Amino acid sequence: MIFIMKQSATEPQIEAITATLKKYGLGVHLSKGTEATIIGVIGDKSKLLAHVTPELLPGVERCVPIAQSYKLASRTLHPEGKPALVGGFTIGGKELAIMAGPCAVESEEQIFETAKAVNASGAQFLRGGAYKPRTSPYAFQGMEDEGFKLLRAAADAHGLRVVSEVIAETQLDTAAQYCDMFQIGARNMQNFRLLKAVGRSGVPVLLKRGIASTIDEWLDAAEYILAEGNENVILCERGIRTFETATRNTLDIGAVAVARERSSLPIIIDPSHAAGKVAYVEPLALAGVAAGANGVIVEVHPNPKEAMSDAAQQLTFAQFDVLVKKMEKVHSALA
Amino acid sequence: MIFIMKQSATEPQIEAITATLKKYGLGVHLSKGTEATIIGVIGDKSKLLAHVTPELLPGVERCVPIAQSYKLASRTLHPEGKPALVGGFTIGGKELAIMAGPCAVESEEQIFETAKAVNASGAQFLRGGAYKPRTSPYAFQGMEDEGFKLLRAAADAHGLRVVSEVIAETQLDTAAQYCDMFQIGARNMQNFRLLKAVGRSGVPVLLKRGIASTIDEWLDAAEYILAEGNENVILCERGIRTFETATRNTLDIGAVAVARERSSLPIIIDPSHAAGKVAYVEPLALAGVAAGANGVIVEVHPNPKEAMSDAAQQLTFAQFDVLVKKMEKVHSALA
Amino acid sequence: MIFIMKQSATEPQIEAITATLKKYGLGVHLSKGTEATIIGVIGDKSKLLAHVTPELLPGVERCVPIAQSYKLASRTLHPEGKPALVGGFTIGGKELAIMAGPCAVESEEQIFETAKAVNASGAQFLRGGAYKPRTSPYAFQGMEDEGFKLLRAAADAHGLRVVSEVIAETQLDTAAQYCDMFQIGARNMQNFRLLKAVGRSGVPVLLKRGIASTIDEWLDAAEYILAEGNENVILCERGIRTFETATRNTLDIGAVAVARERSSLPIIIDPSHAAGKVAYVEPLALAGVAAGANGVIVEVHPNPKEAMSDAAQQLTFAQFDVLVKKMEKVHSALA
Amino acid sequence: MIFIMKQSATEPQIEAITATLKKYGLGVHLSKGTEATIIGVIGDKSKLLAHVTPELLPGVERCVPIAQSYKLASRTLHPEGKPALVGGFTIGGKELAIMAGPCAVESEEQIFETAKAVNASGAQFLRGGAYKPRTSPYAFQGMEDEGFKLLRAAADAHGLRVVSEVIAETQLDTAAQYCDMFQIGARNMQNFRLLKAVGRSGVPVLLKRGIASTIDEWLDAAEYILAEGNENVILCERGIRTFETATRNTLDIGAVAVARERSSLPIIIDPSHAAGKVAYVEPLALAGVAAGANGVIVEVHPNPKEAMSDAAQQLTFAQFDVLVKKMEKVHSALA
Repeated sequence: MIFIMKQSATEPQIEAITATLKKYGLGVHLSKGTEATIIGVIGDKSKLLAHVTPELLPGVERCVPIAQSYKLASRTLHPEGKPALVGGFTIGGKELAIMAGPCAVESEEQIFETAKAVNASGAQFLRGGAYKPRTSPYAFQGMEDEGFKLLRAAADAHGLRVVSEVIAETQLDTAAQYCDMFQIGARNMQNFRLLKAVGRSGVPVLLKRGIASTIDEWLDAAEYILAEGNENVILCERGIRTFETATRNTLDIGAVAVARERSSLPIIIDPSHAAGKVAYVEPLALAGVAAGANGVIVEVHPNPKEAMSDAAQQLTFAQFDVLVKKMEKVHSALA
Repeated sequence: MIFIMKQSATEPQIEAITATLKKYGLGVHLSKGTEATIIGVIGDKSKLLAHVTPELLPGVERCVPIAQSYKLASRTLHPEGKPALVGGFTIGGKELAIMAGPCAVESEEQIFETAKAVNASGAQFLRGGAYKPRTSPYAFQGMEDEGFKLLRAAADAHGLRVVSEVIAETQLDTAAQYCDMFQIGARNMQNFRLLKAVGRSGVPVLLKRGIASTIDEWLDAAEYILAEGNENVILCERGIRTFETATRNTLDIGAVAVARERSSLPIIIDPSHAAGKVAYVEPLALAGVAAGANGVIVEVHPNPKEAMSDAAQQLTFAQFDVLVKKMEKVHSALA
Repeated sequence: MIFIMKQSATEPQIEAITATLKKYGLGVHLSKGTEATIIGVIGDKSKLLAHVTPELLPGVERCVPIAQSYKLASRTLHPEGKPALVGGFTIGGKELAIMAGPCAVESEEQIFETAKAVNASGAQFLRGGAYKPRTSPYAFQGMEDEGFKLLRAAADAHGLRVVSEVIAETQLDTAAQYCDMFQIGARNMQNFRLLKAVGRSGVPVLLKRGIASTIDEWLDAAEYILAEGNENVILCERGIRTFETATRNTLDIGAVAVARERSSLPIIIDPSHAAGKVAYVEPLALAGVAAGANGVIVEVHPNPKEAMSDAAQQLTFAQFDVLVKKMEKVHSALA
Repeated sequence: MIFIMKQSATEPQIEAITATLKKYGLGVHLSKGTEATIIGVIGDKSKLLAHVTPELLPGVERCVPIAQSYKLASRTLHPEGKPALVGGFTIGGKELAIMAGPCAVESEEQIFETAKAVNASGAQFLRGGAYKPRTSPYAFQGMEDEGFKLLRAAADAHGLRVVSEVIAETQLDTAAQYCDMFQIGARNMQNFRLLKAVGRSGVPVLLKRGIASTIDEWLDAAEYILAEGNENVILCERGIRTFETATRNTLDIGAVAVARERSSLPIIIDPSHAAGKVAYVEPLALAGVAAGANGVIVEVHPNPKEAMSDAAQQLTFAQFDVLVKKMEKVHSALA
């Protein structure tokens, strides 16, 4: 950490800060410039921060942190990246991870038909919402545990792994019986109790980025899971909220590159929620693969026109099949 | 709801939509313009929406909703506004609601001293975080239940009501013993399980706006609580995330006026989290009162320099005393 | 400026930077911490920056600037603030500056009627658009020079000063004959040629904040004008673009406090463009005054329903009269 | 256009609107629903809009536009797309347009070296800033006309076309002698005088998207140029301003798909300004090509460490060569 002092800071103020830092066992480097005096802090600051708020010490203009707050999620520990193992499949390895399925599980027929189709096209994971967080209390909230059961059965019938969203600590034991990977949705990215609970569950976690979360906040959220001893965390960029409304959200394609630089965790993208409209799903998915994402999670439905939620962004089986072929082409071209 | 058809929409497509609407018991008004054909839908659309996604019907350009999704939170039901009663105090009445206290409860001495001071200055509520949602797992997470107990004791000693954040369904029974009002933090505004649970608790709820939530999403969140039969919901604007970083968040002062127009719920503002810096707290608080807010919630600490969280934005007792006097002046001037 | 080196930076890299800095006549302070080595730079960096890009030197993680890029616009030069004198009226003094008039000048009758009314209510400035920058080429673009003439005549008839937008270097000589103050609109805040030209004109300038400009970029824009020797620059906050669309823009009320802290320039607010709707204009204007703005610029029209642009946000004479009275009450309460 | 009436709208209010519409020669379709009465308007509304503000008519809740405000820029006129011809090269055809060069022209040696290298790697266009709009008045502002001359000479020596930014109406005659295509920078996207002037110039225009402009505002800006008879307009997405600061701007990759759907104009992307950092340029460029962009404009410098502006985002010749090869692979894979 660096203290940048005010131009008007007095000598006694500077000495007082130096004394405080030393009291907490820290080293100090003073640099008196023409613009301002700078105080560099050396050593472990945790005791200091538990008792003092640096920004408020007299004479301080601002403080600049040097290190990131996450450790386990950082690239430093695993400079080569750290693939995640989910149901025997390696996310972050050579093969593109492809997760597909309906926004919400609606019926046995719907989910079995979808599992068959997406498996045939090349997906390794079946997705589908059993518990749906919905903006309005009056909207369809999902089939709940019945949805989990159908997902599991359909996935097993077609050799797929199950990824599905969890929304409460109390449901994890049940959910763990049916899911190969838990999804934490964008709205729960900073539901820290839930993060700790999925951390303790040991089940791999797909962590969606919050709609207005910075990349560092997202990695801090991953740290909550990793700090509980759960090593299989996969990041998922799904679009952020900006002033532009032509797409449902703005896919932050640069986040793929930034997350790769700062973190060793694998990262996939969700083009469906970012697009909000079928016509934009393919270009966004291809952009993600070209930018270096380790996979995609895509909404696919046997009959999008009759879907009960987010229908506007779900692909037909035929559209999904075309998409997978194109993604594989881009992935191979850059291999 | 209105369907706006594509310019290229065919007659059979229009007829198919008409037939679908009628099948679900809806009335139809057709309007063939030079730019596009418009189909107005008349009646209760819930059955339609449970089976069909209007945007995906062939020939449709887009659909425009007419009504808002919230009912109980809307202004329509209570055109004069609907004050909330919290521990015998009416929020949304003639008197300004003033809630003050430290970001986090840190010790008995700290919270009793604060309760005494803010009561003397005119606050009716004592605030303080017992459970603190923190971005990093390594930051101070609060005194938890011990914090609730101290808050209650300090408030009782000085005739104040307690408002404190709750973060999990499982803690509500305990929290209800100590709090007059639950606070739902910005990060949990769309934690729908928690919203339903505080709704069932019957304890009044201070609902902070999510950092990237629209005003309508916020009112939808309030609807989750109201729909459980809990009538005492108070909105709290605390700043939204924008590109500007000079303040911690951008206080959306216009939200006070918009929420008042769309909803009957009382609204207060939190200048501390929006400001992120002591020097900006007073101007933001005064702006809120002038814009018509029913109250404020402000961070106050006996010794901000030694606070364990968010110290940069906590007022001293003397600063708070000045602020209350100015707020009362503005409130009287506009009464 | 401070260099924060990568953890992996080598000793030769650090020595190379030190040598470079010395070559450009700069002093160096090295601080080797546990997290990173920090290099503080002392002295005038302009020669360095003309030849070297610090961020790209081998081993550098990032550079942290210490000083702001604007000098004349900063608070440092005038710690007590620096009022502007416009047509004999002091903006930034004890009296609130009130500027009012229609979005666009439409006719002689309209502007004379408005001048009479706003003067009677207490305005000192008549505003009105003669040249209107419009998003679409097919929208009404203003009465141009004829509009300036009408403004001048109406203002003179009622003892008001004229403020009107200029959009091109080539029109300034003409515009200077009719205007007491030039307005630079939000879309032109970074039209640097125009900024320099109004700087050279010597006419006082009302500088609107760009819709997506940070406060520091805004002050940099002011610096362009001040650097040409024009001392009368007034800042105008008019709302920024965010994800929220309930108001036309989000009035950044905190910007009033931040601009006051960083700059000596007076600041007023424009509630009309931020609101986009009559019902929100009054609360925003009152919030601005309470937050410490030196004045407001408000759209007023004799018959808003027949206005040719931005009608939804223009007040009637009666609404404006009520507003002025309330603003004066808030201003007095805080005097 | 559709009027959505308030629930409280009275019969006489509805009749008054109907009468007003008829007065301006418009057809009317009334639809009385359970939620609200809807009034559809049929015919050419230009006369109406020149005299009446629909949103302000008594009883109106809001108005919904049906048609976009741009015509010449829309996809409707050219459903297959409309390539642009620039110096004999077709942008929007089968071949990827590749524009490369330094942020700013700095010297003869620098620009000739760069022209040689980027031509060898496969670029068809040489870019370089002669006039640089800079946030601070104290930053390097470019070599001005001398820069244009060097660009032209270097491009001619290596068979390249010149694209360079123009910032003022008054410079266009001179600039047209040296440039094959004018660039309108993000800050000038709504400098409507300049848009009209480049429209009249007949020189092809690369129109960068404003940092906070919606896609529709961008197409409206293109309409200003097209409406002057200039048919060669190319859109350039270069990142928008959001809350995320890890990248300099957030590349709106979805804008490529949206612009393609709404407009017939070719679109390229600028990964350099969006990235702000060399490490992110390649992933963003590849994402753009995969999403269907017709080309890219990339910053390349012989010695980025000594560049005078935006050095952190300029590629070396070797990095650019690798990038072009990868872009071609992605482009071929999807052909």
